[in-house]
Amino acid sequence: MRKPRRDQDSHRLQAFGARVRELRVAGGLSQEDLAERASLHRTYIGSVERGERNLAIGNCYALADALNVPLREMLDD
Amino acid sequence: MRKPRRDQDSHRLQAFGARVRELRVAGGLSQEDLAERASLHRTYIGSVERGERNLAIGNCYALADALNVPLREMLDD
Repeated sequence: MRKPRRDQDSHRLQAFGARVRELRVAGGLSQEDLAERASLHRTYIGSVERGERNLAIGNCYALADALNVPLREMLDD
Repeated sequence: MRKPRRDQDSHRLQAFGARVRELRVAGGLSQEDLAERASLHRTYIGSVERGERNLAIGNCYALADALNVPLREMLDD
């Protein structure tokens, strides 16, 4: 039961990271620009985009706000 | 700049917790039932419902899955 959930989490984190990258690039922002807007660190943005971070929901909202997109529209399901 | 974001985060965490409680009660589940379904601890569920947790997105998904609701439908914006 735990294993499948972790696999699914991993898939979802990767999907979220890909969405962050897509919206960032579409907005003409560098990772550094987005980091500054969201009050996060540039290397953190990189790890989020690679799906390596099980980030706190507060940081998800910070990224959504910085990208001018409702968080719910950044989630697959 | 940081203060308003924290206030907003707090409001969002409280809204998320209220939604968890609403869906849990609507589904006839106790905190203990939900905890078991989501592989989380009962006291953790309580603190989420009170908006006290800046929970990781993996746990948000675990709760959404346990409540049979897409996570995006559990978020205000």
